[in-house]
Amino acid sequence: MAIRIDYSNMMDGVVAGGVPAAEWREAATQFRSAYRAVEQLRASKGIGFFDLPGDTALLRQSTDFAAERAGRYGSIVVLGIGGSALGPIALRTALRPSGWNELSDEERGGLPRLYVLDNVDPRTVSAILDRVDLPRTLFIVTSKSGGTAETMAQYLIVRERLRRAHLATPGNHLAFVTDPAHGALRPLAAREGVRALDIPPNVGGRYSVLTPVGTLPAALIGTDVGALLAGADEMVRRCASDTLTENPAGVFATLQWLSDTQHGRHVQVFMPYADTLRDFADWFVQLWAESLGKVRRTERGVDHVGQTPLAALGATDQHSQVQLFMEGPADKTITFVGVGRPGASADLEIPHAYSDIPELAYLGGHTLGELIDVERRATAGAFAKRGRPNLTITLDTVDAWHVGGLIMLLQIATAYAGSLYGIDAFNQPGVELGKQFAYALLGRSDASPDARREWDALPKPDPRWSV
Amino acid sequence: MAIRIDYSNMMDGVVAGGVPAAEWREAATQFRSAYRAVEQLRASKGIGFFDLPGDTALLRQSTDFAAERAGRYGSIVVLGIGGSALGPIALRTALRPSGWNELSDEERGGLPRLYVLDNVDPRTVSAILDRVDLPRTLFIVTSKSGGTAETMAQYLIVRERLRRAHLATPGNHLAFVTDPAHGALRPLAAREGVRALDIPPNVGGRYSVLTPVGTLPAALIGTDVGALLAGADEMVRRCASDTLTENPAGVFATLQWLSDTQHGRHVQVFMPYADTLRDFADWFVQLWAESLGKVRRTERGVDHVGQTPLAALGATDQHSQVQLFMEGPADKTITFVGVGRPGASADLEIPHAYSDIPELAYLGGHTLGELIDVERRATAGAFAKRGRPNLTITLDTVDAWHVGGLIMLLQIATAYAGSLYGIDAFNQPGVELGKQFAYALLGRSDASPDARREWDALPKPDPRWSV
Repeated sequence: MAIRIDYSNMMDGVVAGGVPAAEWREAATQFRSAYRAVEQLRASKGIGFFDLPGDTALLRQSTDFAAERAGRYGSIVVLGIGGSALGPIALRTALRPSGWNELSDEERGGLPRLYVLDNVDPRTVSAILDRVDLPRTLFIVTSKSGGTAETMAQYLIVRERLRRAHLATPGNHLAFVTDPAHGALRPLAAREGVRALDIPPNVGGRYSVLTPVGTLPAALIGTDVGALLAGADEMVRRCASDTLTENPAGVFATLQWLSDTQHGRHVQVFMPYADTLRDFADWFVQLWAESLGKVRRTERGVDHVGQTPLAALGATDQHSQVQLFMEGPADKTITFVGVGRPGASADLEIPHAYSDIPELAYLGGHTLGELIDVERRATAGAFAKRGRPNLTITLDTVDAWHVGGLIMLLQIATAYAGSLYGIDAFNQPGVELGKQFAYALLGRSDASPDARREWDALPKPDPRWSV
Repeated sequence: MAIRIDYSNMMDGVVAGGVPAAEWREAATQFRSAYRAVEQLRASKGIGFFDLPGDTALLRQSTDFAAERAGRYGSIVVLGIGGSALGPIALRTALRPSGWNELSDEERGGLPRLYVLDNVDPRTVSAILDRVDLPRTLFIVTSKSGGTAETMAQYLIVRERLRRAHLATPGNHLAFVTDPAHGALRPLAAREGVRALDIPPNVGGRYSVLTPVGTLPAALIGTDVGALLAGADEMVRRCASDTLTENPAGVFATLQWLSDTQHGRHVQVFMPYADTLRDFADWFVQLWAESLGKVRRTERGVDHVGQTPLAALGATDQHSQVQLFMEGPADKTITFVGVGRPGASADLEIPHAYSDIPELAYLGGHTLGELIDVERRATAGAFAKRGRPNLTITLDTVDAWHVGGLIMLLQIATAYAGSLYGIDAFNQPGVELGKQFAYALLGRSDASPDARREWDALPKPDPRWSV
């Protein structure tokens, strides 16, 4: 069981335009400062995600709930958006059989389906609510603040549906995942007789997949959440070094930061070669984008920082985006995630046929697992040859332990990167103005009057600029 | 029925750092040249996608096939990748009820499910092949060249499965979509007794969704492909003007090109506010990325061009990526796609409740359709206020006519943009090296010996740069 990073293809000498060896050596000092800053935050309890693997009481909230309710649900529906949705979706795709929700009850071993309502499109919300059998459904309302408009709107609709269905005990069909003390959901839990599980106050939405935000839905559909946290725990241990080259999260963060700020690599393509990690890439995108895309205020003034993450999937996107990554502007790094070859039983052999047709003949005798692995290596090699820096994270296999480790690797790396960029990786002030505008338009009683005035003062659509 | 573009928020004066009015006026001349270059390509039959809406014979290949085979299949499985997969997936998500493959036979009106195998991950391929009932399944093998390694590997596996199932007539379970004369699949069709539908030689993969690549699977699952082409036809007509401000595709292309090359907006976020268009965004990403991400060779030397497209979804990604778009580097434009409000029957009202809790009280009485619309407008306004240029494409509704029009709008815009950037928007030379490396590694008999030598000469992974 191991997670390895090979970053040869990030380095100048291997790849033209990569990080020069001298710059890399010097960065060890900057990393040491970043490491200490993060350790300090951690020690002062400013950030809590490092400590989740050891928080057995919190994990037990999820596993006890899942054990207690075993067999009672055919469907779990998460009402959540952003950090409340991306983790549960990523875990389902990575750790449950392919097409989980399309499998029969028998194929799922009697475990429930898992839907995640991550938007407020009425068409989708209607479709899911019409599809599930309400008496055998659990709705998990996930919002740390209890003020997320999309999630609260869904909750109000679901609550009404449950009433109309005359389901006597709402607590059998609802669970809340929220702050232990603050916010609008916590008092509602008591008032409505609904069980509420905790998101620790010092764990923000995009760092919360290892809290009940992720572990409750995962446990309910039969994921080994203990192994998930054990993998994360091992990664915390591996990252307990202020020596850059020994700390995998440090290596990842420092390479991306240098590439962005010193070499113009403003975009990071995150490209797993495994369908299981397709949705994991979207989880990473939120983590990196929302943590690092910030206004930085220094003595020299204000600037705007943050590398733009971009999700891709191999081999699929070789036929979509790789042309741009290879020949377009040299403004990208590529993070490949490779997976050790599947065991023979899980692989598929390509039969020999058409020995007279060169486009087909060479495929026979290889396996699909071999093909996807060869394509990843060939693409990484081609990028290297063309001066496009890339690194490869390799998991032995996609299981709960490795996924837990990968989650923690990237979370720790994001914290280090925040310190390297000189910004706060744990807030998101940039979404506030849009929220205030929406509150003003919807007539929220405590909406900021300034926001209403600012909205009214915006230039109106100009008919000259319309077609 | 209409598609409108409002680009007020792209213009300086409305948005700080937008396109100045004088620059916009001057661009009319450059657009006129681009328009003429594209018209010339079209007249010389160098590109064929403009003419697809009028090609009733080609459309009839799909509709006749679908009519003839009606009622025979429970599942359609497309074997295809890139341009052969993204179109069919986008059409299914946009134009069929939500969660199509999870609906019962009755809910689907007896129409088949549609799976698209767009990767060679053995786990997914096994799962789909195990799930479908082979005697009631049609596999559509889509590859213009017949040389796509991933698709051909899948075909060999499927062919063997059909044999082992003793399904006497492979032609009942297979269809090919390929070049009318060239490539490896066309002769196989005759040899194996399989019906082959055409991709016109002058229509490349990423411009092929309105050929049988898209129309065959769409027709088989009950989409009104006639309306799809009618919408596209109307857009061709609307774009028949060399006057920039009258040509919607011209407006879109020229704004993005100016923003990228004159104002450093190197990333275009494509962000529909409708779950139905979630997969459409991925279709657009391929179109824009693979068409425009190119090496440009001029008298002044070689450079690397192309705006990087990035798919997002509203309101969902307000909680994931909007922080970066708002406060990160000012290197992006945002393309919103809005949809006219759903009819009352398709919308969901949010019930009044909790009048004492401000986080919930204001939502009651609004609808989800209103909420998602308000969020789009609030986000666009906030971007404008913060100097982040954006435009909004509005569809009255998401139906076949409007989706056909949107497809054609973006395809024509991509052709214009190719001319504005001074590159060939219809080739993809950058993916060749990776393919050659893969052929060499897999032992394809006619693999380039140069590629093998280049591969062997690549620096090996360096243990110093591994953790």
